[in-house]
Amino acid sequence: MNELVNKLRQGNRRALARAMSSVGATGHAESSLEVCLRESTGQVPWWGFTGPPGVGKSTLLDALLVHLREHGRRVGVVAVDPTSTRSDGALLGDRVRMMRHAVDDGVFIRSLATHGHHGGLSDATLHCARLLELAGYDPVLIETVGVGQNEVEIRSVADLCVVVLGPGYGDDIQLVKAGLLEIADVVAVNKCDLPEAQRLVNEVRQEFAAAARDIEVVAIEAKSGNGVPELLQRLFELDRARRTETAEASRGRRRTLGEIRRRTEFSCRQALGRAMTGPEVEQWITKLNRGECSLATVISRLAALALAELQQEADDG
Amino acid sequence: MNELVNKLRQGNRRALARAMSSVGATGHAESSLEVCLRESTGQVPWWGFTGPPGVGKSTLLDALLVHLREHGRRVGVVAVDPTSTRSDGALLGDRVRMMRHAVDDGVFIRSLATHGHHGGLSDATLHCARLLELAGYDPVLIETVGVGQNEVEIRSVADLCVVVLGPGYGDDIQLVKAGLLEIADVVAVNKCDLPEAQRLVNEVRQEFAAAARDIEVVAIEAKSGNGVPELLQRLFELDRARRTETAEASRGRRRTLGEIRRRTEFSCRQALGRAMTGPEVEQWITKLNRGECSLATVISRLAALALAELQQEADDG
Repeated sequence: MNELVNKLRQGNRRALARAMSSVGATGHAESSLEVCLRESTGQVPWWGFTGPPGVGKSTLLDALLVHLREHGRRVGVVAVDPTSTRSDGALLGDRVRMMRHAVDDGVFIRSLATHGHHGGLSDATLHCARLLELAGYDPVLIETVGVGQNEVEIRSVADLCVVVLGPGYGDDIQLVKAGLLEIADVVAVNKCDLPEAQRLVNEVRQEFAAAARDIEVVAIEAKSGNGVPELLQRLFELDRARRTETAEASRGRRRTLGEIRRRTEFSCRQALGRAMTGPEVEQWITKLNRGECSLATVISRLAALALAELQQEADDG
Repeated sequence: MNELVNKLRQGNRRALARAMSSVGATGHAESSLEVCLRESTGQVPWWGFTGPPGVGKSTLLDALLVHLREHGRRVGVVAVDPTSTRSDGALLGDRVRMMRHAVDDGVFIRSLATHGHHGGLSDATLHCARLLELAGYDPVLIETVGVGQNEVEIRSVADLCVVVLGPGYGDDIQLVKAGLLEIADVVAVNKCDLPEAQRLVNEVRQEFAAAARDIEVVAIEAKSGNGVPELLQRLFELDRARRTETAEASRGRRRTLGEIRRRTEFSCRQALGRAMTGPEVEQWITKLNRGECSLATVISRLAALALAELQQEADDG
């Protein structure tokens, strides 16, 4: 175990790739590595990047990697893998645009496959980001597609959240914006060579002004790199400000808190799911549909069933 | 109450709009209207439409409305409203393209604002769709933006699920596809005047073939209406097939089951949130970060707290 941790701290890429694959052991039992990671990380900032599909998040990350390397930073990236198959290595399946950094020893990119699962993604993200931190990568960049509930997930994992927007989503952009702007620390509007993007910049600025929220909106063009240094400066500033505001330890605590919450939610959902398959449920539906019992009663009984189930499981496990 | 239900059955638009606004009473207590709706609906098919932002879902719905009206159908639409403000009427805030149907008495369009909330959306959707069904609209069309967990939501509400895809999402389309194709009964690929869309049609067909899933992929061009009659025919066919396969009552049962599950999970999440603010939690985190207790212990204790809270609350309410 100590040997593994030493290898990881020295930045051994093979050990890192292997340790990343070890996450997601079934059930609640944690490996000693996971326990060790929780204890020994929490200092490095994690920056989350989210936005609607096709907005150019990978291109932006690619551009940021260039600048961060110029600043002498070693950078870790956790990206949701758009393909559902993945190799046990870290580099296959990565996005093509980022591939050129694969040969750079100062960059480690890990793709995570979603496999259509929910709930497990954040745990894997957390695990990989902690590993990257232990291996000396700073900062750690996390990329997810954000629409709907994903945005809540990234907020609970990342320290700073960059929302990437762009033109070309029709009416839906309003909906996407509504959810995403709530969680933004910085907004990057991509494709600012297009006039619609400039309109979007103004629109978002007005929305923040109306809500009296002091969030910077940076116009970028990820492909050419325009605006990317400005975005990076803003991220460094925000990091410094947060670092002086709060104690170092609080970052680790916040991550642990999020981890507990997500895992407990998952555990409750599974217990409720099992309770829902019980023979009583069919009868309850009949009664509910006839107006013979209330929804509140059903919820209370389901909660009781799930609780019993959970205790049973804890006793067994 | 009976008077209200009669008005609704007669298709009184003002009563309908008012009843739609009444949903979302806090807590578990249900109005007598909600109970009545659960008892008296479940026969009309609900078709869900989901897909990434900007793919053209509204344009498709607009085209479908034209054809459904030609078939003599009265059609209800529940659409997630891209604006966050809404009037108490049913028509303001609707998407511009669909507005021309607002003057048609055979169409009722309801926009639902998300307000950034999660969990509550499906309840409101269910309520409005049931109301539209009671008022004689058949079918009821439900439109949501689908990426990530939203797709699970629409699947638990709609009887048939149309996944709308289109070109132009870069690498992200792989990710979006992965989640969406799992829930599709039919796939409509929009913008098929573009060669990239035709490639997407072939790609999706190959994926279904490889997975031995018999899902039709329809090439459409929502703007011109090309392919929309074919899509509609497919939906009618699927509806007829399902209707003969399963008893009429099962639709209502399935909806109630989904309703129970979503409401219980939502309440459980809230109960967990309250449990997380308890004084024990800070101590647990300290212990966890020091490696003095296991994550499994914390999770099972918290889950027990949350479920007990949920049960208590449901009993009180």
